[in-house]
Amino acid sequence: MINPTAAMLVIGDEILSGRTQDTNTHHLAGELTAHGIDLLEVRVVPDDTGAIIAAVQYLAERHNHLFTSGGIGPTHDDITSDAVAAAFDTPIDVRDDARAVLTAHYATTHTKLNAARLRMARVPDGAILIDNPISAAPGFSLKNVHVMAGVPMIFQAMLASLLPSLSGGKPLLSQTLRLMHAEGVIAKPLGELAAQYPEVSFGSYPFYTDSTFGTNIVSRCTDADMLDTVMTELTNMFPTETT
Amino acid sequence: MINPTAAMLVIGDEILSGRTQDTNTHHLAGELTAHGIDLLEVRVVPDDTGAIIAAVQYLAERHNHLFTSGGIGPTHDDITSDAVAAAFDTPIDVRDDARAVLTAHYATTHTKLNAARLRMARVPDGAILIDNPISAAPGFSLKNVHVMAGVPMIFQAMLASLLPSLSGGKPLLSQTLRLMHAEGVIAKPLGELAAQYPEVSFGSYPFYTDSTFGTNIVSRCTDADMLDTVMTELTNMFPTETT
Repeated sequence: MINPTAAMLVIGDEILSGRTQDTNTHHLAGELTAHGIDLLEVRVVPDDTGAIIAAVQYLAERHNHLFTSGGIGPTHDDITSDAVAAAFDTPIDVRDDARAVLTAHYATTHTKLNAARLRMARVPDGAILIDNPISAAPGFSLKNVHVMAGVPMIFQAMLASLLPSLSGGKPLLSQTLRLMHAEGVIAKPLGELAAQYPEVSFGSYPFYTDSTFGTNIVSRCTDADMLDTVMTELTNMFPTETT
Repeated sequence: MINPTAAMLVIGDEILSGRTQDTNTHHLAGELTAHGIDLLEVRVVPDDTGAIIAAVQYLAERHNHLFTSGGIGPTHDDITSDAVAAAFDTPIDVRDDARAVLTAHYATTHTKLNAARLRMARVPDGAILIDNPISAAPGFSLKNVHVMAGVPMIFQAMLASLLPSLSGGKPLLSQTLRLMHAEGVIAKPLGELAAQYPEVSFGSYPFYTDSTFGTNIVSRCTDADMLDTVMTELTNMFPTETT
């Protein structure tokens, strides 16, 4: 079985200007790996309708799932929902089910559902709402595109609402061997081991700490027994270096 | 004057699997903004030659500069240099100037310049080396593509070596007003102000802390006087909310 594939589209000028560090991609990547969905591509685009439409069309066509973060709030720079609708040529307007969610939420918080907030009930025809347990304003799935908020806590809550409904494959398992050797020392034997086990993906990640180079070797595959086998081989290969 | 534009290409399975949080994009974004280069697009691709070539060709064609991070070390999964050379149909081999840098470095550290390490001297014909003051193995610029390491400390050092040589435009200035109001309250007046000052980019970034919603309003433009003017207007608009 081949795992479903996914892409992530991060939307926001604040990421590209360096104001905000995107952390949603990292969270999504970990969750998808555990769920057996392979994240193969990430893009970051500005708050620009044309750029969003082009990226949505390209990525949704090529992957089983596209996840987006950012741009679904009540302000003038929140243009994601309309852009995603436009990408599929789907009508969008304030929808009764989304409005009901907001009305109920603002009633409990004694807040007015003004025109700006009502924009957050704009949902494309045929989209399925994604529950937002934190601030109510929902995300949505239109075909294979899952539109979620940019605020990390809300993104994470929406993903937790959504992910159980998506079919996953085998979780990708990984084990790491931390070596206090620079990559140059381990490159040759590691390359030979990688050639011997084509089913396993071997990554070599150098680090630099206290003026010393080290390397984390990460082995990844969906078969737990095979992973144990290669980790044993790796440990034998670098016997004194295990930590 | 219009600022030069740039794209970033992050290369590495470890980002897409959720093992590693990419921080190089955030660092680059801040440095480019200060230097007057507009970062307009970011992509993350796996350690896959075809994916790297396609992304390099697309992004280098459309922007004044493309920065890459990751995949230039000595191990089997370090394929960026060869992929970038292939993207421009440029020959690549161990180059004397890069070999000399490595030879000098490893002589001081009493380390053997083995075959694996020598791979880090593979540089495309015509490329200009980027200095690496931390671990010697250089990055390079081939046409408008700047190939740098993935380890954040080395990426940052290489960027510091490179950036002064690139022409920048006017730095994008920004000021932030932090409001303890949810976006829904400020959306309407902020939208009106944004329409009144088309030269200024207004971003609205909700946050959630201690069970309360707030919003940072960020005004960005290259004209310091105009920025002061709109910040005064914003402060008058929300007089009790300044912090």
